[in-house]
Amino acid sequence: MQQVTIEDIRAAADRIRGSVLRTPLIPAGWGDPERPLWIKPESLQAVGAFKVRGAFNAIAALDDDTRARGVVAYSSGNHAQAVAYAASRWGIAAHIVMPEETPNVKVAATREWGATVVLCGAGERERVAARLVTETGGVLIPPFDHPDVIAGQGTIGLEIAEDLPDVETVLIPVSGGGLASGIGTALRALCPRARVIGVEPELAADTAEALRVGHRVDWPIQDRNRTIADGLRSQPSELTFDHLRRVLDDLITVSENDIRAASRELALRAHLVAEPSGAVALAAYRSTATPRGRTVIVLSGGNVEPALMAEILVG
Amino acid sequence: MQQVTIEDIRAAADRIRGSVLRTPLIPAGWGDPERPLWIKPESLQAVGAFKVRGAFNAIAALDDDTRARGVVAYSSGNHAQAVAYAASRWGIAAHIVMPEETPNVKVAATREWGATVVLCGAGERERVAARLVTETGGVLIPPFDHPDVIAGQGTIGLEIAEDLPDVETVLIPVSGGGLASGIGTALRALCPRARVIGVEPELAADTAEALRVGHRVDWPIQDRNRTIADGLRSQPSELTFDHLRRVLDDLITVSENDIRAASRELALRAHLVAEPSGAVALAAYRSTATPRGRTVIVLSGGNVEPALMAEILVG
Repeated sequence: MQQVTIEDIRAAADRIRGSVLRTPLIPAGWGDPERPLWIKPESLQAVGAFKVRGAFNAIAALDDDTRARGVVAYSSGNHAQAVAYAASRWGIAAHIVMPEETPNVKVAATREWGATVVLCGAGERERVAARLVTETGGVLIPPFDHPDVIAGQGTIGLEIAEDLPDVETVLIPVSGGGLASGIGTALRALCPRARVIGVEPELAADTAEALRVGHRVDWPIQDRNRTIADGLRSQPSELTFDHLRRVLDDLITVSENDIRAASRELALRAHLVAEPSGAVALAAYRSTATPRGRTVIVLSGGNVEPALMAEILVG
Repeated sequence: MQQVTIEDIRAAADRIRGSVLRTPLIPAGWGDPERPLWIKPESLQAVGAFKVRGAFNAIAALDDDTRARGVVAYSSGNHAQAVAYAASRWGIAAHIVMPEETPNVKVAATREWGATVVLCGAGERERVAARLVTETGGVLIPPFDHPDVIAGQGTIGLEIAEDLPDVETVLIPVSGGGLASGIGTALRALCPRARVIGVEPELAADTAEALRVGHRVDWPIQDRNRTIADGLRSQPSELTFDHLRRVLDDLITVSENDIRAASRELALRAHLVAEPSGAVALAAYRSTATPRGRTVIVLSGGNVEPALMAEILVG
């Protein structure tokens, strides 16, 4: 299977420059002295999540005629806003298929970037998206299962290597695996001595199991849906699992309580709003399983319902 | 009266480099299209507020023998942690006088940076600080009434000018006035066409009145204490008022409801935790009094009690 290379990631960095925020690496003086801590806050992206990197790169990599026909995506989460935002930067049409039960605030945010939102029934979204591709001639932008998306997310790894070349540990949330595949690929090339560690909720730890048994495993969606980390309920594709197997040194799982505590700690000590999925890397950092040394956590996103964030803050 | 110059601010930037975070200027795509918006998030500093710039510069500017005797400060707020942090970076002693009623979490945070906290009764803090200066030989670091503190805060203006040289409006919270004096001085020199606008809560609008009448006015502390923006209850000194009169184009006042709404908007759209005092510039941005054009808001700090932040989030 064709793997994404550091050259692909460098090309992605050239494409997204000026349109996607180059996030700072923020030193957190309140970390454990044995594990000096830096935060990579992808929550500061215009759409509140790293997804904009992959979406923008995938659209930028299209040839002009193809791109002009617009794009299609299905997502109830951060990928929806990311594709809508990237399409708006290119001035092209975006059709985003979202389940009818998607919270209004997410539908509104996607529409605010100029996208056409098409609501659909449960289990219908892939069929509806396929119809839109046929009708509009647009290109489907997948949330993780595409080399250009992986390469886009990998630009985070490029930036970590530039800002902290002697990093020793990088902790990355794992869901569909595009983020960890991209960052891991960049770090393997640029910081070969750094440990690249994935993080999953215990309640959606399919990749932890898959890495143990050496092949992908399927956890029922009703099981994965139990975690508060609603962005981490996907499973790797063949393409991303093939990357993860090669680039991850380890995968740490964290409890629901650890995730809530980490989100609270990020708000009160780093003054960054993290959605539960975005806080798992700090939860893993607080785990005794994490090695010593200079550590970067990837805060993948900050889109959280206000009532849930309020509940997390008061503990 | 001797005013701080752009050369003082450049010297401060050299002194604080590497010890104080050079914060990014974050484009906020969700701003008003007629007023493209950027956020300067000083909440990302290690102590959660801009105060570390002035404190660090004031300590760095001391001669080695004087600095070695340590520093003293009195504060119940962000200045306490800022001086404690800066002293810890220099490896010198810090004695911080705090009122007995200071929330435990702030006392603990100050101690975490290695400072000795001296609790005192109401109205006692200046006397206790003076005694500590005599006893320890340490230097008093004031929160705003000092040229080196103003020059340190001014480095924010230097960074804004570097990152967005064609900025048209900059909105800055005003309390004791050190922040706005410093930033305004930098912008007058580097971006002479930018409008520099102070922001105060309506309930602590002594500087708005002072600028109208042309001299400092004294609002009773019980009046100023009514605002939720607990970091904006101080009043300018002669030194800072003299700067403000020269560098501010205008001063906008905002209501308590506007401040809460702005803090909520920063959390949900920018994914940044702002204390109420840190949110007033966004409140002013949302006011019809604000001119059009490329606008920077200074988010001055993010240290907020979790229960209050939770209350703000659920509206």
